[in-house]
Amino acid sequence: IETKLPKVGTTIFTVMSQLALEYKAVNLGQGFPDFEPPQPLRDALARAMDEGRNQYAPMHGTAGLREQIALKTERLYGRKVDVDREITVTSGATEALFAAMAAVVRAGDEVIVFDPAYDSYEPAIDLQGARAVHIPLTVPTFSIDWQRVRDAITPKTRMILVNSPHNPSGAVLSAGDLDELAAIVRDSSIVVLSDEVYEHIVYDGAQHQSVLRHPELAERSFVISSFGKTYHCTGWKVGYAIAPPALSAEFRKVHQYLTFCTFHPAQVAFAEFMASTPEHYLELPAFYQAKRDRFRALLAPSRFKLLDVPGGYFQLVDYSAIRDEDDVAFSRWLVEQGGVAAIPLTPFYETAPGTRLLRLCFAKSDATMEAGAERLCRL
Amino acid sequence: IETKLPKVGTTIFTVMSQLALEYKAVNLGQGFPDFEPPQPLRDALARAMDEGRNQYAPMHGTAGLREQIALKTERLYGRKVDVDREITVTSGATEALFAAMAAVVRAGDEVIVFDPAYDSYEPAIDLQGARAVHIPLTVPTFSIDWQRVRDAITPKTRMILVNSPHNPSGAVLSAGDLDELAAIVRDSSIVVLSDEVYEHIVYDGAQHQSVLRHPELAERSFVISSFGKTYHCTGWKVGYAIAPPALSAEFRKVHQYLTFCTFHPAQVAFAEFMASTPEHYLELPAFYQAKRDRFRALLAPSRFKLLDVPGGYFQLVDYSAIRDEDDVAFSRWLVEQGGVAAIPLTPFYETAPGTRLLRLCFAKSDATMEAGAERLCRL
Ligand SMILES: CSCCC(=O)C(=O)O
Ligand SMILES: CSCCC(=O)C(=O)O
Repeated sequence: IETKLPKVGTTIFTVMSQLALEYKAVNLGQGFPDFEPPQPLRDALARAMDEGRNQYAPMHGTAGLREQIALKTERLYGRKVDVDREITVTSGATEALFAAMAAVVRAGDEVIVFDPAYDSYEPAIDLQGARAVHIPLTVPTFSIDWQRVRDAITPKTRMILVNSPHNPSGAVLSAGDLDELAAIVRDSSIVVLSDEVYEHIVYDGAQHQSVLRHPELAERSFVISSFGKTYHCTGWKVGYAIAPPALSAEFRKVHQYLTFCTFHPAQVAFAEFMASTPEHYLELPAFYQAKRDRFRALLAPSRFKLLDVPGGYFQLVDYSAIRDEDDVAFSRWLVEQGGVAAIPLTPFYETAPGTRLLRLCFAKSDATMEAGAERLCRL
Repeated sequence: IETKLPKVGTTIFTVMSQLALEYKAVNLGQGFPDFEPPQPLRDALARAMDEGRNQYAPMHGTAGLREQIALKTERLYGRKVDVDREITVTSGATEALFAAMAAVVRAGDEVIVFDPAYDSYEPAIDLQGARAVHIPLTVPTFSIDWQRVRDAITPKTRMILVNSPHNPSGAVLSAGDLDELAAIVRDSSIVVLSDEVYEHIVYDGAQHQSVLRHPELAERSFVISSFGKTYHCTGWKVGYAIAPPALSAEFRKVHQYLTFCTFHPAQVAFAEFMASTPEHYLELPAFYQAKRDRFRALLAPSRFKLLDVPGGYFQLVDYSAIRDEDDVAFSRWLVEQGGVAAIPLTPFYETAPGTRLLRLCFAKSDATMEAGAERLCRL
């Protein structure tokens, strides 16, 4: 059997999580918290099962959850979205990303992605028979050079995929970036796909510049988010897409046949918890900023150079003072010899830039951060 | 925006469930039980959350659940499957069906499907840029005319999709059917996709003829099943695919970027419940046979003619003695005037055959069956 995805192996996240187990390393690789979702949220899920919410959910998500998403969107981004026609609940953000592409990207189209790029983007583009056009972000700020974007536009450009806060770098888009993007897609048929799964995790008082804040962009965008990062339950796999009615209609046609609907009791639980505890996501920036700052303080005595972290739950570190080898080799050495699993940046690139950077996840308990930092400081 | 799926509207299941609510009809349409999954299974799920199984599950499913699936497969179908390389847990059977197609079907390929066909098959084929080749099943037995299949094979035929027990008809494949299928795909590069989500629901002492019983077919097949129908929790959306290593490898490349992994606590719960209570699926045929027989007895005084039901959870009824109109019009009339939601067969066909048949779901409590039957007997 000839593969349709010749470039795809097992994701670096799975590889590193397995190596972490094998070498009993502190796992700062794959992005997931090592602490639990709030007890009331888990209780609400158990209650939803007992109350008989165990059969198919509505295809586009429960009304209660869509209402809470709409409330949050208006509160945070000042945008009213139509609960019935503009929100679709999905089986994680991964499904939402795939469905958005499958909904509008056709064979022969081009999709602009920024490198380093989350690893699901390109295979999802490939499976539409389309082509990913990679534009490198400017190191070390991981900002977008908009002139390069303008130069990359062709009549085949169907979609531009942005991600803020950015994985792996933590970079965030500014209001000015959104204006640049809007100017580029204006008067074109280009759709924006905005991956905002870390929307609630921005630091130093900054506001997340959701595409939903920008009325012109919002009219032509899929905005993707997820509950996994916000509620410390990456394994629950509930995400959603917000898009104007015409785009949502196409999105739902695909979603309907991709997974049809999403684990019902969790939808009931999220709706209940969001209604009762909206402060959870309001307090998230401070919660994670404390972790970021603690982790940086723990690493200060190390020989790693710490890059700025405007958002998300990853710290990029420059290891060039420690070893002179590429990041894949270094991360392999680090997990085997240093006892810490981290993620190299090369797998996020079409053309690796030869940076000496690793990604470390600080969505961890104090004990895990301390154990990891202790080992990293020994190098 | 031009649609990629011009033929797709909202599924008939959603339409009918909404009409059922609107007209306060007894809902015998969409296929889901109106009773609950076993209490110990729900308890196990709640416990899994408390035990901290809330982050990403392994991409291909938890080891515990894959082991239970392998045990069951060997016990029931006499086939040993490799726990690590041949089983992938998915976000429902719908995802598994889509992933199997996306893994091996390419633009320009043909996929043979039998009509009436479950409504997700064709859009999933279309999204690969491939073409569904529809072969009608022989009414009223809904059996496959294998000569028609042989005649439909072309060099472009990439996949044959079978479904047993069959939705909507309940027809089951025989061992002879599997031999016919094997003879057709032998020495070709055709892959079989076998939708067996009702595998545990076959009646009158018959054995489910899983493709996995047929060593030659098993070597070139994706076999899809799901826990929703077996454990009365269609809204939990956990399914799986079994395929030989080379096919599973391609399947996982797609699954990895379609949903990455599936709701973790449910995987833990299913593994635990299957280990402690294997009799659940062993007793399922008798459980549903009692429902089938009860429903048929309740409908005996009606003017509907009842077709045979060898498996699954649907009763097909011929309504031609009641009204002379097409099935979409009749089901509309039935939900509005008769107070019962049912599913017409036309949406399952490329070319509707003009049969006067409706599908009624008997995966219902006695009270629901009685209320539905009472209304149906009044017509
Ligand atoms: C879906 S596994 C990857 C998790 C993640 O978001 C990351 O580590 O970047
Ligand atoms: C996914 S909604 C349809 C449920 C079902 O299997 C059916 O009613 O046929």
